[in-house]
Amino acid sequence: MYHLVIRQFAFTLRNLDAIVVKAQAYAQHRKFDVNNFCQARLAPDMLPFVNQIRICCDHAKNAAANLAGKVPPKHEDAETTVEELRGRIAKCLAYLDTFTEQDFAQTTDETIVKIPYPAGKSMRARDYLLSRQIPNFYFHVVTAYNILRHNGVEIGKRDFIGQVVL
Amino acid sequence: MYHLVIRQFAFTLRNLDAIVVKAQAYAQHRKFDVNNFCQARLAPDMLPFVNQIRICCDHAKNAAANLAGKVPPKHEDAETTVEELRGRIAKCLAYLDTFTEQDFAQTTDETIVKIPYPAGKSMRARDYLLSRQIPNFYFHVVTAYNILRHNGVEIGKRDFIGQVVL
Repeated sequence: MYHLVIRQFAFTLRNLDAIVVKAQAYAQHRKFDVNNFCQARLAPDMLPFVNQIRICCDHAKNAAANLAGKVPPKHEDAETTVEELRGRIAKCLAYLDTFTEQDFAQTTDETIVKIPYPAGKSMRARDYLLSRQIPNFYFHVVTAYNILRHNGVEIGKRDFIGQVVL
Repeated sequence: MYHLVIRQFAFTLRNLDAIVVKAQAYAQHRKFDVNNFCQARLAPDMLPFVNQIRICCDHAKNAAANLAGKVPPKHEDAETTVEELRGRIAKCLAYLDTFTEQDFAQTTDETIVKIPYPAGKSMRARDYLLSRQIPNFYFHVVTAYNILRHNGVEIGKRDFIGQVVL
């Protein structure tokens, strides 16, 4: 199950990248600088688009690493353009794609996972995944989507969900 | 695992209800009709708040029923006030709270679950949960949250995530 969730995170990040490509096409069509999206936000006291992308990537990356007992790579928060944000997603996907089912073979629901906040605390793998990583990951992906949608990009829920395997 | 995901859905819906209560307090403080939120949306071609609440509730309800081999109750889409939307959440929670681990004892990752769209199709339980119900559920909860946040309600991600068990 753990590997499947990581595969689903990667699937959703690929959908998110396709949504960002639609934002690029929209900016080109309407003749504005696509990088104006980077600092867009839904409320003045909310993190902007650039942070939403970084954070959802990091939640996916950290989930994979922590559940497999590995140390996640550090991805610098230095993006200032939409194309660089696509690069951030690509780096995260390249990392997620290194994982196989075998990496989670030793992980059980009771495996203890250390978390960064609060410092020194830990969670059981199942709680870490279900109550922390999954809600946080989707929170930031959907907020990134909502920022673009609010700003006129022609996207719908289908772009976020993607083509579900039947 | 299936029962734990349903418990997490219920946990998130309780957080959502507390967020709606904050919206009520905000409207009272600012002296406007809280029901103005019902038709609020982030884009003119997007479903409004009232639908976001109904749909996230239904995804949780349907996930529980379908994964346990039960028929979900029909909840009428008739809410026109925020208080009625709280009632919709409460009805969904009351239903989710009837489930025990035993209800999912026969459910395996390979259990076949029928889905309403496309008509006549089905999915394996694991795919139904990970690639359909979880992303859809969070999509609508987070969008409801984002609509309120965009409209000035004083909420943050912590309200959505809730108090995670450590």
